Amino acid sequence: MRILGIDPGLATMGWGLIRSEGHKPRFVACGVITTQPDTPLPRRLSEIDTQVAQLLSLYEPEAIVFEQLFFARNVTTAFTVGAARGVAICRCANYTQQLFEYTPMQIKQAVVGYGKAEKMQVQQMVKLLLGLPTHPKPDDAADAVAAALTHFNAGRFGQHHLMK
Amino acid sequence: MRILGIDPGLATMGWGLIRSEGHKPRFVACGVITTQPDTPLPRRLSEIDTQVAQLLSLYEPEAIVFEQLFFARNVTTAFTVGAARGVAICRCANYTQQLFEYTPMQIKQAVVGYGKAEKMQVQQMVKLLLGLPTHPKPDDAADAVAAALTHFNAGRFGQHHLMK
Repeated sequence: MRILGIDPGLATMGWGLIRSEGHKPRFVACGVITTQPDTPLPRRLSEIDTQVAQLLSLYEPEAIVFEQLFFARNVTTAFTVGAARGVAICRCANYTQQLFEYTPMQIKQAVVGYGKAEKMQVQQMVKLLLGLPTHPKPDDAADAVAAALTHFNAGRFGQHHLMK
Repeated sequence: MRILGIDPGLATMGWGLIRSEGHKPRFVACGVITTQPDTPLPRRLSEIDTQVAQLLSLYEPEAIVFEQLFFARNVTTAFTVGAARGVAICRCANYTQQLFEYTPMQIKQAVVGYGKAEKMQVQQMVKLLLGLPTHPKPDDAADAVAAALTHFNAGRFGQHHLMK
């Protein structure tokens, strides 16, 4: 089972892939999709679309997990971050129906055991759970791996959150 | 010159197509793309993507005009409306670089000559400018036609607003 986690954003979209080996999660790869602020929005969205498609065809994940968005500095930011997330979701929806989402609190709860954990604690636990020499970088990639780990754990307890 | 106007939304996305005949705008078609609230978001976005693609291949517009979003009831709504708009923009960006956007105020200014015009005045002017027996329905379709008309007028005065 390969699980792709995605931490949506317009300038930086984190992604992280894990696979299950028996009852254990294993790290496969992670990274970020970036777009430049001085590039027109249509081209930025098109770049995100293309790069998400490349991830899907390269890694063929069986489940895709999005971190749920709740906060934005303002409505304008929410429109553009929402646009980037929408494009990624749409591309993934054309690939599989196995799309899931978890709130930041559910991710912290699953990875650290405490819904209000600090970012650093999440990163440390990602490193420990996957037996990595250091936590995945940059931060958005680590967040995406944490989302994938959350889905892996949710599966063990039959608590998947299908995207509504 | 065929101009496609789009009034973005998740539940209802209006669209309207006009063409220029000499210096006059002519009505071609309009309608709405709708998705159901009880359908999961990934499928709703995928439906919008498919239907926008169908419009492009059916009408082959040379310019596409989006009404710019500014307001949303709250950040959560902005995320989902932004997602629908992002999917439509991305699909159009893969088709042409001729993407434009105008604010609601610019559209009212262009169509009625007054940036704070009422919705009904905009609809009446759309009807008059295009010589239609009645204004296009539903409202979202009329708004999309108004956006297309705004671009048509902007072209005459060399004031196109390319999407940034």
